[in-house]
Amino acid sequence: MHKQSFSIQQLLLKQIQIPNELLTSYVSLGLNEKEVMLLLQLQRFIQEGIDFPTPDQLSAYVTMKEQECALLLRGLVQKGMLTIVQQEEQGGKLTEAYCLNALWDKLFQPEENTQQNPETSEG
Amino acid sequence: MHKQSFSIQQLLLKQIQIPNELLTSYVSLGLNEKEVMLLLQLQRFIQEGIDFPTPDQLSAYVTMKEQECALLLRGLVQKGMLTIVQQEEQGGKLTEAYCLNALWDKLFQPEENTQQNPETSEG
Amino acid sequence: MHKQSFSIQQLLLKQIQIPNELLTSYVSLGLNEKEVMLLLQLQRFIQEGIDFPTPDQLSAYVTMKEQECALLLRGLVQKGMLTIVQQEEQGGKLTEAYCLNALWDKLFQPEENTQQNPETSEG
Amino acid sequence: MHKQSFSIQQLLLKQIQIPNELLTSYVSLGLNEKEVMLLLQLQRFIQEGIDFPTPDQLSAYVTMKEQECALLLRGLVQKGMLTIVQQEEQGGKLTEAYCLNALWDKLFQPEENTQQNPETSEG
Repeated sequence: MHKQSFSIQQLLLKQIQIPNELLTSYVSLGLNEKEVMLLLQLQRFIQEGIDFPTPDQLSAYVTMKEQECALLLRGLVQKGMLTIVQQEEQGGKLTEAYCLNALWDKLFQPEENTQQNPETSEG
Repeated sequence: MHKQSFSIQQLLLKQIQIPNELLTSYVSLGLNEKEVMLLLQLQRFIQEGIDFPTPDQLSAYVTMKEQECALLLRGLVQKGMLTIVQQEEQGGKLTEAYCLNALWDKLFQPEENTQQNPETSEG
Repeated sequence: MHKQSFSIQQLLLKQIQIPNELLTSYVSLGLNEKEVMLLLQLQRFIQEGIDFPTPDQLSAYVTMKEQECALLLRGLVQKGMLTIVQQEEQGGKLTEAYCLNALWDKLFQPEENTQQNPETSEG
Repeated sequence: MHKQSFSIQQLLLKQIQIPNELLTSYVSLGLNEKEVMLLLQLQRFIQEGIDFPTPDQLSAYVTMKEQECALLLRGLVQKGMLTIVQQEEQGGKLTEAYCLNALWDKLFQPEENTQQNPETSEG
């Protein structure tokens, strides 16, 4: 009777996968816990098909207000951890989407970043 | 030249799985981003076979110093998000280990916590 | 130039998660490799939002023809590894969907099955 | 009463991640369900720290006997889906280990395999 609402299938389907590298290296990339959490929330939204959640949508799930979310997102874009790309929807309409590839590149190809950015703070 | 050190196999093997429910509900459980990050780091350590990382070990991967890690860990135990269990090692030696089951129970069986069913047999 | 089409983000988002228990226990549940592969393909389809793939759709991804897929699916339902549930879509229309919860229950609560089915072949 | 032995934590920690690409493309790589299952079992063993399971160990988890496992493993190596690498253990002892990177490369960099770029620096 109890545990009736828990479904192993839902647990399996509703997970996000995060490279350990993000957890072990975010500090050396210059990120803090709030920024990493925003990136995790973005990954979750993207996985659910929402490619461009607003700061307001994000703020419902973190301890930050909309304005702080907006500020941190802008910072993540400026630091090159996050990019905003244009996507063409089925009807030809252009929409924006967050893309985390820049983050993964920084985590997994640090030599590239150091080559190009001698002042980088990653090492 | 670049990407030579990147291994898809390593990426596949070195991931952490995070239930969406943790990301969507930690605020309502009374947790903040630093606390969630400590829980994620614990999960990563456990997955790598280190069941009882010290605050000092944890502090190497977060923006917090050892003392703040220790304080937050104690708080997580007090809030019932984290338990410390005794494990018997192969040689019969008793060791301590962090256990996150209390957290998952709170996330996935919320009815128990709010209703406090006295007759529940689950613990 | 090379590896240009590989995206870590796509790899992270396009995975299915399978309990080790399925890999270690399918033989004792009476399943073979073709049946497990159909279950994995179902999980992949469900994760992509297609809850009721046809045998024809499935046969595009396995070494089996449509008819063999249909036969094995029917067998999985008869063995109680797979159920077909009715779902209500947004417009109120009823559709069918595969549900793998019966499989997970068999894997993770074997005591229930043996209690209720003395003739079970799982042990 | 039931479900008492089920632990969400164990489920989270004991999962294997399978790229969708493997499920959608193994047939076009010339693999069948038994071969894919052996690869998944290898991945599971590797994840648990056993890098070179024997055909006998594998046969305990599949519908095949030891000899068939050995035959299929040899075929996977010959097809270039699987490599055996030498690893140096802590004491300096050399041990063998299965490596699935060749499989992932075939799945995620198909252009290389078909074009056979002699100047590629990755292979």
